[in-house]
Amino acid sequence: MNVLVVGSVALDSVETPYGMVENALGGSAVYFSVSASYFTNVGVVAVIGRDFPEDHLNFLKSKRIDLRGLKRESGLTFHWKGRYSGDLNEAETIDTQLNVFEDFRPYIPEEYRESSFVFLANIDPELQLNVLEQVKRPKLTICDTMNFWIEGKLEQLKEIIKRVDILIINEGEVRQLSRETNLIKAYQKISSYGPKVLVIKQGSYGALLFTPSSVFSAPAYPLQELSDPTGAGDCFAGGFVGYLAKSQDTAEDELRKAVIYGSVMASFNVENFSLGRLKTLTIDEIEKRFESFRKLTQF
Amino acid sequence: MNVLVVGSVALDSVETPYGMVENALGGSAVYFSVSASYFTNVGVVAVIGRDFPEDHLNFLKSKRIDLRGLKRESGLTFHWKGRYSGDLNEAETIDTQLNVFEDFRPYIPEEYRESSFVFLANIDPELQLNVLEQVKRPKLTICDTMNFWIEGKLEQLKEIIKRVDILIINEGEVRQLSRETNLIKAYQKISSYGPKVLVIKQGSYGALLFTPSSVFSAPAYPLQELSDPTGAGDCFAGGFVGYLAKSQDTAEDELRKAVIYGSVMASFNVENFSLGRLKTLTIDEIEKRFESFRKLTQF
Repeated sequence: MNVLVVGSVALDSVETPYGMVENALGGSAVYFSVSASYFTNVGVVAVIGRDFPEDHLNFLKSKRIDLRGLKRESGLTFHWKGRYSGDLNEAETIDTQLNVFEDFRPYIPEEYRESSFVFLANIDPELQLNVLEQVKRPKLTICDTMNFWIEGKLEQLKEIIKRVDILIINEGEVRQLSRETNLIKAYQKISSYGPKVLVIKQGSYGALLFTPSSVFSAPAYPLQELSDPTGAGDCFAGGFVGYLAKSQDTAEDELRKAVIYGSVMASFNVENFSLGRLKTLTIDEIEKRFESFRKLTQF
Repeated sequence: MNVLVVGSVALDSVETPYGMVENALGGSAVYFSVSASYFTNVGVVAVIGRDFPEDHLNFLKSKRIDLRGLKRESGLTFHWKGRYSGDLNEAETIDTQLNVFEDFRPYIPEEYRESSFVFLANIDPELQLNVLEQVKRPKLTICDTMNFWIEGKLEQLKEIIKRVDILIINEGEVRQLSRETNLIKAYQKISSYGPKVLVIKQGSYGALLFTPSSVFSAPAYPLQELSDPTGAGDCFAGGFVGYLAKSQDTAEDELRKAVIYGSVMASFNVENFSLGRLKTLTIDEIEKRFESFRKLTQF
Protein backbone atom coordinates (compact mmCIF):
# COMPACT_ATOMS: atom_id res chain seq x y z
CA MET A 1 0.00 0.00 0.00
CA ASN A 2 1.33 3.40 -0.91
CA VAL A 3 -0.81 5.41 1.53
CA LEU A 4 -2.46 4.26 4.74
CA VAL A 5 -5.03 6.39 6.55
CA VAL A 6 -6.45 5.73 9.99
CA GLY A 7 -9.43 7.85 10.96
CA SER A 8 -13.20 8.05 11.14
CA VAL A 9 -16.00 7.06 8.82
CA ALA A 10 -19.19 8.92 9.65
CA LEU A 11 -22.72 9.74 8.66
CA ASP A 12 -23.02 13.52 8.84
CA SER A 13 -26.03 15.78 9.10
CA VAL A 14 -24.91 19.24 8.09
CA GLU A 15 -26.66 22.55 7.71
CA THR A 16 -25.13 25.63 6.06
CA PRO A 17 -26.72 28.84 4.70
CA TYR A 18 -26.73 27.05 1.33
CA GLY A 19 -28.64 23.90 2.19
CA MET A 20 -28.50 20.77 4.29
CA VAL A 21 -27.93 17.03 4.14
CA GLU A 22 -28.89 14.23 6.53
CA ASN A 23 -26.85 11.10 7.21
CA ALA A 24 -24.51 11.89 4.35
CA LEU A 25 -21.18 10.13 3.85
CA GLY A 26 -18.43 11.75 5.89
CA GLY A 27 -15.55 11.19 8.31
CA SER A 28 -11.86 12.07 8.11
CA ALA A 29 -10.76 8.75 6.61
CA VAL A 30 -13.38 9.04 3.87
CA TYR A 31 -12.57 12.60 2.82
CA PHE A 32 -8.86 11.87 3.00
CA SER A 33 -8.94 8.62 1.06
CA VAL A 34 -11.24 9.82 -1.72
CA SER A 35 -9.05 12.91 -2.16
CA ALA A 36 -5.79 10.89 -2.13
CA SER A 37 -7.27 8.28 -4.50
CA TYR A 38 -6.77 10.73 -7.38
CA PHE A 39 -3.02 10.43 -6.89
CA THR A 40 -2.21 6.93 -5.64
CA ASN A 41 -3.57 3.76 -4.01
CA VAL A 42 -4.92 4.14 -0.49
CA GLY A 43 -5.87 1.74 2.28
CA VAL A 44 -8.31 2.68 5.02
CA VAL A 45 -8.37 1.55 8.64
CA ALA A 46 -11.64 2.61 10.27
CA VAL A 47 -14.89 1.26 11.68
CA ILE A 48 -18.51 1.37 10.48
CA GLY A 49 -21.78 0.16 12.01
CA ARG A 50 -24.61 -2.01 10.81
CA ASP A 51 -26.48 1.01 9.41
CA PHE A 52 -23.70 2.06 7.03
CA PRO A 53 -25.21 2.02 3.52
CA GLU A 54 -23.84 -0.36 0.90
CA ASP A 55 -23.99 2.49 -1.64
CA HIS A 56 -21.28 4.36 0.26
CA LEU A 57 -19.05 1.29 0.23
CA ASN A 58 -19.60 0.93 -3.49
CA PHE A 59 -18.66 4.57 -4.00
CA LEU A 60 -15.39 4.10 -2.10
CA LYS A 61 -14.67 0.93 -4.08
CA SER A 62 -15.36 2.81 -7.31
CA LYS A 63 -12.44 5.06 -6.35
CA ARG A 64 -10.33 1.88 -5.96
CA ILE A 65 -9.82 2.57 -2.26
CA ASP A 66 -8.66 -0.52 -0.40
CA LEU A 67 -11.21 -1.33 2.32
CA ARG A 68 -9.62 -4.43 3.83
CA GLY A 69 -8.92 -2.41 6.99
CA LEU A 70 -12.54 -1.20 7.29
CA LYS A 71 -14.29 -3.18 10.02
CA ARG A 72 -18.07 -3.43 10.37
CA GLU A 73 -19.37 -3.72 13.95
CA SER A 74 -22.89 -4.51 15.16
CA GLY A 75 -23.60 -1.05 16.63
CA LEU A 76 -24.45 2.12 14.75
CA THR A 77 -22.02 4.18 12.66
CA PHE A 78 -20.48 7.36 14.10
CA HIS A 79 -22.94 10.24 13.55
CA TRP A 80 -22.04 13.92 13.55
CA LYS A 81 -24.52 16.75 13.31
CA GLY A 82 -23.29 20.27 12.76
CA ARG A 83 -24.11 23.70 11.47
CA TYR A 84 -22.12 26.46 9.77
CA SER A 85 -23.24 30.06 9.57
CA GLY A 86 -21.90 33.37 8.30
CA ASP A 87 -18.59 32.98 6.48
CA LEU A 88 -18.52 29.17 7.06
CA ASN A 89 -15.20 29.36 8.86
CA GLU A 90 -16.33 27.53 11.99
CA ALA A 91 -18.62 24.55 12.63
CA GLU A 92 -21.01 24.42 15.53
CA THR A 93 -21.49 20.83 16.69
CA ILE A 94 -25.13 20.11 17.45
CA ASP A 95 -24.78 16.43 18.24
CA THR A 96 -22.09 13.74 18.29
CA GLN A 97 -23.00 10.06 18.54
CA LEU A 98 -19.71 8.15 18.69
CA ASN A 99 -21.44 4.75 18.53
CA VAL A 100 -19.03 2.08 17.17
CA PHE A 101 -16.28 4.72 16.98
CA GLU A 102 -16.21 4.86 20.77
CA ASP A 103 -14.53 1.44 20.99
CA PHE A 104 -12.42 1.83 17.86
CA ARG A 105 -9.00 0.21 18.31
CA PRO A 106 -7.21 0.42 14.98
CA TYR A 107 -5.86 -2.89 13.80
CA ILE A 108 -3.52 -2.59 10.85
CA PRO A 109 -3.93 -5.58 8.54
CA GLU A 110 -0.71 -7.39 7.59
CA GLU A 111 -1.04 -6.16 3.99
CA TYR A 112 -0.97 -2.52 5.13
CA ARG A 113 1.96 -2.68 7.52
CA GLU A 114 4.57 -1.73 4.99
CA SER A 115 2.70 1.31 3.70
CA SER A 116 5.12 4.03 2.62
CA PHE A 117 3.01 7.02 3.68
CA VAL A 118 0.96 6.92 6.87
CA PHE A 119 -1.65 9.58 7.61
CA LEU A 120 -2.99 9.69 11.15
CA ALA A 121 -6.24 11.60 10.85
CA ASN A 122 -7.67 13.49 13.78
CA ILE A 123 -8.36 10.74 16.35
CA ASP A 124 -7.31 10.10 19.95
CA PRO A 125 -3.51 10.48 20.12
CA GLU A 126 -3.29 7.19 22.03
CA LEU A 127 -4.77 5.43 19.00
CA GLN A 128 -2.42 7.34 16.71
CA LEU A 129 0.51 6.06 18.79
CA ASN A 130 -0.88 2.56 18.63
CA VAL A 131 -0.96 2.75 14.82
CA LEU A 132 2.68 3.83 14.65
CA GLU A 133 3.59 0.77 16.73
CA GLN A 134 2.00 -1.51 14.16
CA VAL A 135 3.52 -0.13 10.95
CA LYS A 136 7.02 -0.94 9.69
CA ARG A 137 9.31 1.96 8.93
CA PRO A 138 7.05 4.13 6.75
CA LYS A 139 8.81 6.57 4.46
CA LEU A 140 6.76 9.44 5.85
CA THR A 141 4.30 9.87 8.72
CA ILE A 142 1.87 12.76 8.83
CA CYS A 143 -0.64 13.59 11.55
CA ASP A 144 -3.56 15.91 12.18
CA THR A 145 -5.19 16.77 15.50
CA MET A 146 -7.71 19.17 17.05
CA ASN A 147 -8.38 21.37 20.09
CA PHE A 148 -10.24 18.52 21.84
CA TRP A 149 -7.00 16.50 22.16
CA ILE A 150 -4.84 19.56 22.89
CA GLU A 151 -7.10 20.29 25.83
CA GLY A 152 -7.70 16.72 26.98
CA LYS A 153 -4.65 14.63 26.08
CA LEU A 154 -1.75 17.00 25.67
CA GLU A 155 0.96 14.63 26.94
CA GLN A 156 -0.09 11.79 24.64
CA LEU A 157 -0.44 14.26 21.79
CA LYS A 158 3.10 15.53 22.33
CA GLU A 159 4.26 11.91 22.30
CA ILE A 160 2.75 11.32 18.87
CA ILE A 161 3.93 14.66 17.50
CA LYS A 162 7.45 13.75 18.56
CA ARG A 163 7.29 10.70 16.33
CA VAL A 164 5.84 12.06 13.09
CA ASP A 165 7.56 13.83 10.20
CA ILE A 166 4.83 16.32 9.33
CA LEU A 167 2.11 17.95 11.41
CA ILE A 168 -0.94 19.31 9.56
CA ILE A 169 -3.01 21.50 11.83
CA ASN A 170 -5.20 24.55 11.66
CA GLU A 171 -4.10 28.02 12.67
CA GLY A 172 -6.05 28.35 15.90
CA GLU A 173 -4.92 24.94 17.03
CA VAL A 174 -1.23 25.46 16.30
CA ARG A 175 -1.39 28.58 18.47
CA GLN A 176 -3.12 26.63 21.22
CA LEU A 177 -0.65 23.76 21.00
CA SER A 178 2.51 25.89 20.87
CA ARG A 179 1.26 28.69 23.12
CA GLU A 180 2.69 31.12 20.58
CA THR A 181 0.62 33.74 18.75
CA ASN A 182 3.32 34.32 16.15
CA LEU A 183 3.35 31.52 13.58
CA ILE A 184 7.12 31.54 13.02
CA LYS A 185 7.62 31.06 16.75
CA ALA A 186 4.90 28.39 16.73
CA TYR A 187 6.85 26.51 14.04
CA GLN A 188 10.07 26.78 16.03
CA LYS A 189 8.31 25.33 19.06
CA ILE A 190 6.62 22.52 17.11
CA SER A 191 9.82 21.58 15.33
CA SER A 192 11.60 21.43 18.70
CA TYR A 193 9.04 18.75 19.67
CA GLY A 194 9.90 16.69 16.58
CA PRO A 195 8.34 17.31 13.15
CA LYS A 196 10.53 19.41 10.89
CA VAL A 197 7.67 20.19 8.54
CA LEU A 198 4.54 22.02 9.65
CA VAL A 199 1.50 22.73 7.49
CA ILE A 200 -0.88 25.33 8.92
CA LYS A 201 -4.38 25.35 7.44
CA GLN A 202 -5.94 28.80 7.43
CA GLY A 203 -9.40 28.04 6.00
CA SER A 204 -10.46 30.67 3.48
CA TYR A 205 -7.01 32.29 3.76
CA GLY A 206 -5.08 29.30 2.42
CA ALA A 207 -2.20 27.45 4.02
CA LEU A 208 1.38 27.95 5.19
CA LEU A 209 4.18 25.42 4.84
CA PHE A 210 7.13 25.70 7.23
CA THR A 211 10.30 23.71 6.61
CA PRO A 212 13.78 24.16 8.10
CA SER A 213 14.81 26.16 5.01
CA SER A 214 11.80 28.29 4.07
CA VAL A 215 8.21 29.39 4.42
CA PHE A 216 5.70 28.90 1.62
CA SER A 217 2.37 30.70 1.51
CA ALA A 218 -0.45 29.18 -0.54
CA PRO A 219 -3.69 31.07 -1.10
CA ALA A 220 -7.15 29.58 -0.95
CA TYR A 221 -8.90 29.36 -4.30
CA PRO A 222 -11.47 32.17 -4.52
CA LEU A 223 -14.86 30.56 -5.02
CA GLN A 224 -18.09 32.34 -5.69
CA GLU A 225 -20.25 29.49 -4.43
CA LEU A 226 -19.27 27.54 -1.32
CA SER A 227 -21.76 25.00 -0.07
CA ASP A 228 -20.21 23.10 2.81
CA PRO A 229 -16.71 23.25 4.33
CA THR A 230 -17.04 19.85 6.06
CA GLY A 231 -14.06 17.66 5.19
CA ALA A 232 -12.04 20.44 3.56
CA GLY A 233 -9.10 19.85 5.92
CA ASP A 234 -9.06 16.11 5.25
CA CYS A 235 -9.38 16.64 1.49
CA PHE A 236 -6.43 19.02 1.80
CA ALA A 237 -4.43 16.35 3.61
CA GLY A 238 -5.50 13.76 1.01
CA GLY A 239 -4.22 15.88 -1.87
CA PHE A 240 -1.05 16.77 0.05
CA VAL A 241 -0.11 13.24 1.09
CA GLY A 242 -1.48 11.69 -2.12
CA TYR A 243 0.70 13.90 -4.28
CA LEU A 244 3.83 13.20 -2.20
CA ALA A 245 3.14 9.47 -2.30
CA LYS A 246 2.73 9.64 -6.06
CA SER A 247 5.95 11.60 -6.59
CA GLN A 248 7.85 9.57 -3.94
CA ASP A 249 9.85 12.71 -3.29
CA THR A 250 9.67 15.03 -0.30
CA ALA A 251 12.09 17.72 -1.44
CA GLU A 252 11.14 21.33 -0.77
CA ASP A 253 9.65 21.98 -4.23
CA GLU A 254 7.57 18.81 -4.07
CA LEU A 255 6.25 19.76 -0.63
CA ARG A 256 5.16 23.09 -2.09
CA LYS A 257 3.35 21.45 -5.00
CA ALA A 258 1.76 19.05 -2.53
CA VAL A 259 0.34 22.01 -0.57
CA ILE A 260 -1.17 23.35 -3.79
CA TYR A 261 -2.69 19.96 -4.68
CA GLY A 262 -4.09 19.83 -1.17
CA SER A 263 -5.60 23.29 -1.67
CA VAL A 264 -6.99 22.23 -5.04
CA MET A 265 -8.74 19.20 -3.51
CA ALA A 266 -10.13 21.23 -0.61
CA SER A 267 -11.41 23.90 -3.00
CA PHE A 268 -13.39 21.34 -4.99
CA ASN A 269 -14.75 19.64 -1.92
CA VAL A 270 -16.39 22.78 -0.50
CA GLU A 271 -18.34 23.29 -3.73
CA ASN A 272 -20.94 20.71 -2.69
CA PHE A 273 -22.20 18.88 0.40
CA SER A 274 -20.63 15.65 1.63
CA LEU A 275 -18.54 14.02 -1.12
CA GLY A 276 -20.87 15.40 -3.80
CA ARG A 277 -18.24 17.25 -5.77
CA LEU A 278 -15.59 14.52 -5.50
CA LYS A 279 -18.06 12.05 -6.96
CA THR A 280 -17.82 13.72 -10.35
CA LEU A 281 -14.35 15.30 -10.16
CA THR A 282 -11.85 14.39 -12.90
CA ILE A 283 -8.05 14.46 -12.99
CA ASP A 284 -8.27 16.95 -15.82
CA GLU A 285 -10.23 19.35 -13.59
CA ILE A 286 -7.61 18.92 -10.86
CA GLU A 287 -4.78 19.81 -13.22
CA LYS A 288 -6.66 22.83 -14.56
CA ARG A 289 -7.24 24.17 -11.08
CA PHE A 290 -3.59 23.58 -10.19
CA GLU A 291 -2.73 25.88 -13.10
CA SER A 292 -5.32 28.40 -11.85
CA PHE A 293 -3.39 28.54 -8.59
CA ARG A 294 -0.35 29.62 -10.60
CA LYS A 295 -2.30 32.40 -12.27
CA LEU A 296 -3.69 33.41 -8.91
CA THR A 297 -0.26 33.92 -7.38
CA GLN A 298 2.18 34.88 -10.11
CA PHE A 299 3.62 38.37 -10.40
CA MET B 1 3.47 66.34 -8.93
CA ASN B 2 3.37 62.63 -9.68
CA VAL B 3 1.38 61.59 -6.60
CA LEU B 4 -0.96 63.69 -4.48
CA VAL B 5 -2.27 62.45 -1.13
CA VAL B 6 -4.97 64.07 0.95
CA GLY B 7 -5.36 62.72 4.47
CA SER B 8 -4.45 63.19 8.10
CA VAL B 9 -1.28 64.10 9.93
CA ALA B 10 -1.44 62.99 13.55
CA LEU B 11 0.38 62.58 16.80
CA ASP B 12 -0.30 59.03 17.95
CA SER B 13 -0.04 57.39 21.36
CA VAL B 14 0.02 53.67 20.79
CA GLU B 15 0.33 50.68 23.08
CA THR B 16 0.94 47.11 21.90
CA PRO B 17 2.16 43.99 23.72
CA TYR B 18 5.64 44.97 22.48
CA GLY B 19 5.88 48.51 23.82
CA MET B 20 4.38 51.96 23.55
CA VAL B 21 4.97 55.43 22.15
CA GLU B 22 3.46 58.79 23.04
CA ASN B 23 2.75 61.63 20.62
CA ALA B 24 4.62 59.87 17.86
CA LEU B 25 4.41 60.89 14.21
CA GLY B 26 1.41 59.32 12.49
CA GLY B 27 -1.62 59.91 10.28
CA SER B 28 -2.66 58.43 6.96
CA ALA B 29 -1.03 61.12 4.81
CA VAL B 30 2.28 60.66 6.65
CA TYR B 31 2.44 56.87 6.39
CA PHE B 32 1.30 57.00 2.77
CA SER B 33 3.68 59.72 1.66
CA VAL B 34 6.77 58.33 3.38
CA SER B 35 6.06 54.93 1.85
CA ALA B 36 5.39 56.34 -1.63
CA SER B 37 8.47 58.57 -1.42
CA TYR B 38 10.66 55.49 -2.08
CA PHE B 39 9.12 55.28 -5.56
CA THR B 40 8.30 58.79 -6.77
CA ASN B 41 7.67 62.41 -5.77
CA VAL B 42 4.69 63.04 -3.52
CA GLY B 43 2.78 66.11 -2.42
CA VAL B 44 0.74 66.21 0.76
CA VAL B 45 -2.45 68.11 1.51
CA ALA B 46 -3.20 67.96 5.23
CA VAL B 47 -3.34 70.11 8.35
CA ILE B 48 -1.18 70.36 11.47
CA GLY B 49 -1.46 72.37 14.68
CA ARG B 50 0.85 74.67 16.55
CA ASP B 51 2.22 71.76 18.61
CA PHE B 52 3.48 69.76 15.63
CA PRO B 53 7.24 69.29 16.14
CA GLU B 54 9.69 70.77 13.65
CA ASP B 55 11.64 67.50 13.77
CA HIS B 56 8.77 65.67 12.12
CA LEU B 57 8.64 68.24 9.35
CA ASN B 58 12.36 67.87 8.83
CA PHE B 59 11.97 64.11 8.60
CA LEU B 60 9.29 64.44 5.91
CA LYS B 61 11.46 66.94 4.04
CA SER B 62 14.40 64.53 4.27
CA LYS B 63 12.25 62.10 2.27
CA ARG B 64 11.79 64.88 -0.31
CA ILE B 65 8.05 64.97 0.31
CA ASP B 66 6.47 68.17 -0.99
CA LEU B 67 4.80 69.96 1.92
CA ARG B 68 3.43 73.02 0.13
CA GLY B 69 -0.07 71.64 0.75
CA LEU B 70 0.50 71.13 4.48
CA LYS B 71 -1.24 73.91 6.39
CA ARG B 72 -0.42 74.86 9.98
CA GLU B 73 -3.36 76.14 12.05
CA SER B 74 -3.32 77.75 15.48
CA GLY B 75 -5.06 74.87 17.30
CA LEU B 76 -3.58 71.54 18.31
CA THR B 77 -2.67 68.69 15.96
CA PHE B 78 -5.01 65.70 15.57
CA HIS B 79 -4.22 63.21 18.36
CA TRP B 80 -5.10 59.52 18.32
CA LYS B 81 -4.60 57.14 21.21
CA GLY B 82 -5.03 53.43 20.68
CA ARG B 83 -4.14 49.98 21.89
CA TYR B 84 -3.58 46.63 20.18
CA SER B 85 -3.66 43.31 21.95
CA GLY B 86 -3.42 39.62 21.08
CA ASP B 87 -2.60 39.06 17.40
CA LEU B 88 -2.53 42.83 16.68
CA ASN B 89 -5.24 42.53 14.06
CA GLU B 90 -7.54 45.15 15.53
CA ALA B 91 -7.00 48.54 17.18
CA GLU B 92 -8.99 49.70 20.14
CA THR B 93 -9.35 53.47 20.12
CA ILE B 94 -8.87 54.93 23.58
CA ASP B 95 -9.11 58.59 22.66
CA THR B 96 -9.51 60.74 19.56
CA GLN B 97 -8.88 64.48 19.65
CA LEU B 98 -9.66 65.82 16.18
CA ASN B 99 -8.44 69.35 17.03
CA VAL B 100 -7.43 71.20 13.84
CA PHE B 101 -8.49 68.17 11.76
CA GLU B 102 -12.11 68.86 12.69
CA ASP B 103 -12.24 71.90 10.43
CA PHE B 104 -9.97 70.52 7.73
CA ARG B 105 -11.14 71.62 4.29
CA PRO B 106 -8.57 70.41 1.79
CA TYR B 107 -7.33 73.11 -0.50
CA ILE B 108 -5.28 71.78 -3.39
CA PRO B 109 -2.50 74.24 -4.27
CA GLU B 110 -2.27 75.24 -7.92
CA GLU B 111 1.03 73.32 -8.26
CA TYR B 112 -0.66 70.05 -7.24
CA ARG B 113 -3.76 70.24 -9.42
CA GLU B 114 -2.30 68.36 -12.34
CA SER B 115 -1.02 65.45 -10.24
CA SER B 116 -1.15 62.19 -12.20
CA PHE B 117 -2.04 59.90 -9.27
CA VAL B 118 -4.40 61.03 -6.55
CA PHE B 119 -4.79 59.06 -3.33
CA LEU B 120 -7.74 59.96 -1.14
CA ALA B 121 -6.81 58.57 2.25
CA ASN B 122 -9.47 57.63 4.77
CA ILE B 123 -11.22 60.96 5.47
CA ASP B 124 -14.82 62.20 5.25
CA PRO B 125 -16.16 61.24 1.79
CA GLU B 126 -17.48 64.78 1.36
CA LEU B 127 -13.91 66.05 1.61
CA GLN B 128 -12.75 63.34 -0.79
CA LEU B 129 -15.36 64.54 -3.30
CA ASN B 130 -14.23 68.10 -2.79
CA VAL B 131 -10.64 67.09 -3.65
CA LEU B 132 -11.74 65.45 -6.89
CA GLU B 133 -13.46 68.67 -7.86
CA GLN B 134 -10.20 70.59 -7.50
CA VAL B 135 -7.84 68.31 -9.47
CA LYS B 136 -7.54 68.24 -13.24
CA ARG B 137 -8.00 64.88 -14.97
CA PRO B 138 -5.63 62.70 -12.94
CA LYS B 139 -4.42 59.56 -14.65
CA LEU B 140 -5.58 57.43 -11.73
CA THR B 141 -7.64 58.06 -8.59
CA ILE B 142 -7.50 55.68 -5.64
CA CYS B 143 -9.44 55.89 -2.41
CA ASP B 144 -9.57 54.27 1.01
CA THR B 145 -12.36 54.46 3.57
CA MET B 146 -13.48 52.89 6.86
CA ASN B 147 -16.52 51.55 8.76
CA PHE B 148 -17.17 54.98 10.32
CA TRP B 149 -18.06 56.45 6.92
CA ILE B 150 -19.88 53.33 5.73
CA GLU B 151 -22.13 53.65 8.76
CA GLY B 152 -22.45 57.42 8.84
CA LYS B 153 -22.13 58.75 5.28
CA LEU B 154 -23.00 55.89 2.97
CA GLU B 155 -24.59 58.01 0.23
CA GLN B 156 -21.66 60.43 0.03
CA LEU B 157 -19.27 57.47 0.16
CA LYS B 158 -21.01 55.80 -2.79
CA GLU B 159 -20.74 59.08 -4.65
CA ILE B 160 -16.95 59.14 -4.23
CA ILE B 161 -16.56 55.43 -4.96
CA LYS B 162 -18.46 55.94 -8.21
CA ARG B 163 -15.81 58.44 -9.29
CA VAL B 164 -12.53 56.66 -8.45
CA ASP B 165 -10.62 54.03 -10.42
CA ILE B 166 -9.41 51.89 -7.54
CA LEU B 167 -10.84 51.23 -4.10
CA ILE B 168 -8.42 50.00 -1.39
CA ILE B 169 -10.32 48.73 1.61
CA ASN B 170 -10.02 46.11 4.31
CA GLU B 171 -11.86 42.82 4.26
CA GLY B 172 -14.40 43.50 7.00
CA GLU B 173 -15.21 46.88 5.48
CA VAL B 174 -15.69 45.61 1.94
CA ARG B 175 -18.22 43.11 3.30
CA GLN B 176 -19.97 45.87 5.23
CA LEU B 177 -20.02 48.19 2.21
CA SER B 178 -21.16 45.60 -0.33
CA ARG B 179 -23.38 43.62 2.04
CA GLU B 180 -21.81 40.47 0.57
CA THR B 181 -19.89 37.89 2.63
CA ASN B 182 -18.34 36.30 -0.45
CA LEU B 183 -15.47 38.44 -1.75
CA ILE B 184 -16.04 37.68 -5.44
CA LYS B 185 -19.63 38.87 -5.07
CA ALA B 186 -18.38 41.87 -3.09
CA TYR B 187 -16.11 42.80 -6.03
CA GLN B 188 -18.97 42.44 -8.49
CA LYS B 189 -21.06 44.77 -6.38
CA ILE B 190 -18.28 47.34 -5.88
CA SER B 191 -17.38 47.33 -9.58
CA SER B 192 -21.05 47.93 -10.42
CA TYR B 193 -20.76 51.12 -8.34
CA GLY B 194 -17.78 52.30 -10.39
CA PRO B 195 -14.19 51.21 -9.65
CA LYS B 196 -13.06 48.34 -11.84
CA VAL B 197 -10.13 47.54 -9.58
CA LEU B 198 -10.56 46.52 -5.94
CA VAL B 199 -7.75 45.85 -3.47
CA ILE B 200 -8.83 44.06 -0.31
CA LYS B 201 -6.42 44.30 2.64
CA GLN B 202 -6.52 41.22 4.86
CA GLY B 203 -4.04 42.20 7.58
CA SER B 204 -1.78 39.29 8.49
CA TYR B 205 -3.32 37.23 5.67
CA GLY B 206 -2.13 39.50 2.86
CA ALA B 207 -4.17 41.16 0.15
CA LEU B 208 -6.40 40.35 -2.81
CA LEU B 209 -6.49 42.26 -6.09
CA PHE B 210 -9.64 42.03 -8.20
CA THR B 211 -9.66 43.31 -11.77
CA PRO B 212 -12.16 42.63 -14.58
CA SER B 213 -9.90 39.86 -15.90
CA SER B 214 -8.47 38.08 -12.84
CA VAL B 215 -7.93 37.68 -9.12
CA PHE B 216 -4.47 37.95 -7.58
CA SER B 217 -3.67 36.73 -4.09
CA ALA B 218 -0.67 38.21 -2.27
CA PRO B 219 0.51 36.80 1.06
CA ALA B 220 1.62 38.83 4.02
CA TYR B 221 5.32 38.59 4.77
CA PRO B 222 5.83 36.27 7.75
CA LEU B 223 7.53 38.27 10.47
CA GLN B 224 8.83 36.95 13.73
CA GLU B 225 8.74 40.31 15.44
CA LEU B 226 5.84 42.69 14.89
CA SER B 227 5.82 45.82 17.00
CA ASP B 228 2.96 48.02 15.87
CA PRO B 229 0.48 47.65 12.98
CA THR B 230 -0.48 51.35 13.00
CA GLY B 231 -0.19 52.77 9.50
CA ALA B 232 0.28 49.41 7.77
CA GLY B 233 -2.70 50.01 5.50
CA ASP B 234 -1.46 53.45 4.48
CA CYS B 235 2.08 52.17 3.92
CA PHE B 236 0.54 49.47 1.74
CA ALA B 237 -1.32 52.12 -0.25
CA GLY B 238 1.88 54.21 -0.48
CA GLY B 239 3.85 51.31 -1.96
CA PHE B 240 0.98 50.38 -4.27
CA VAL B 241 0.31 53.86 -5.65
CA GLY B 242 3.99 54.86 -5.52
CA TYR B 243 5.02 51.90 -7.66
CA LEU B 244 2.25 52.52 -10.22
CA ALA B 245 3.15 56.19 -10.40
CA LYS B 246 6.78 55.27 -10.94
CA SER B 247 6.03 52.76 -13.67
CA GLN B 248 3.30 54.98 -15.22
CA ASP B 249 1.58 51.78 -16.27
CA THR B 250 -1.55 50.24 -14.82
CA ALA B 251 -1.63 47.01 -16.81
CA GLU B 252 -2.57 43.82 -14.96
CA ASP B 253 1.01 42.67 -14.29
CA GLU B 254 1.99 46.11 -12.99
CA LEU B 255 -1.01 46.16 -10.66
CA ARG B 256 0.15 42.81 -9.28
CA LYS B 257 3.68 44.05 -8.68
CA ALA B 258 2.21 47.16 -7.07
CA VAL B 259 0.30 44.98 -4.59
CA ILE B 260 3.56 43.23 -3.70
CA TYR B 261 5.39 46.54 -3.25
CA GLY B 262 2.50 47.65 -1.05
CA SER B 263 2.87 44.48 1.00
CA VAL B 264 6.62 44.99 1.23
CA MET B 265 6.20 48.51 2.60
CA ALA B 266 3.52 47.43 5.10
CA SER B 267 5.72 44.55 6.27
CA PHE B 268 8.59 46.89 7.06
CA ASN B 269 6.39 49.43 8.77
CA VAL B 270 5.01 47.00 11.37
CA GLU B 271 8.54 46.12 12.48
CA ASN B 272 8.74 49.24 14.61
CA PHE B 273 6.53 51.88 16.21
CA SER B 274 5.43 55.00 14.34
CA LEU B 275 7.66 55.64 11.32
CA GLY B 276 10.64 54.10 13.12
CA ARG B 277 11.41 51.46 10.54
CA LEU B 278 10.83 53.71 7.53
CA LYS B 279 13.34 56.17 8.94
CA THR B 280 16.19 53.78 8.18
CA LEU B 281 14.74 51.74 5.32
CA THR B 282 16.72 51.60 2.08
CA ILE B 283 15.69 50.89 -1.51
CA ASP B 284 18.00 47.91 -1.47
CA GLU B 285 16.09 46.41 1.46
CA ILE B 286 12.81 46.99 -0.39
CA GLU B 287 14.06 45.14 -3.48
CA LYS B 288 15.37 42.26 -1.38
CA ARG B 289 12.05 41.83 0.36
CA PHE B 290 10.25 42.00 -3.00
CA GLU B 291 12.36 39.00 -4.05
CA SER B 292 11.52 37.28 -0.75
CA PHE B 293 7.86 37.54 -1.71
CA ARG B 294 8.66 35.58 -4.86
CA LYS B 295 10.37 32.85 -2.84
CA LEU B 296 7.45 32.84 -0.44
CA THR B 297 4.91 32.12 -3.18
CA GLN B 298 6.62 30.21 -5.96
CA PHE B 299 5.90 26.56 -6.65
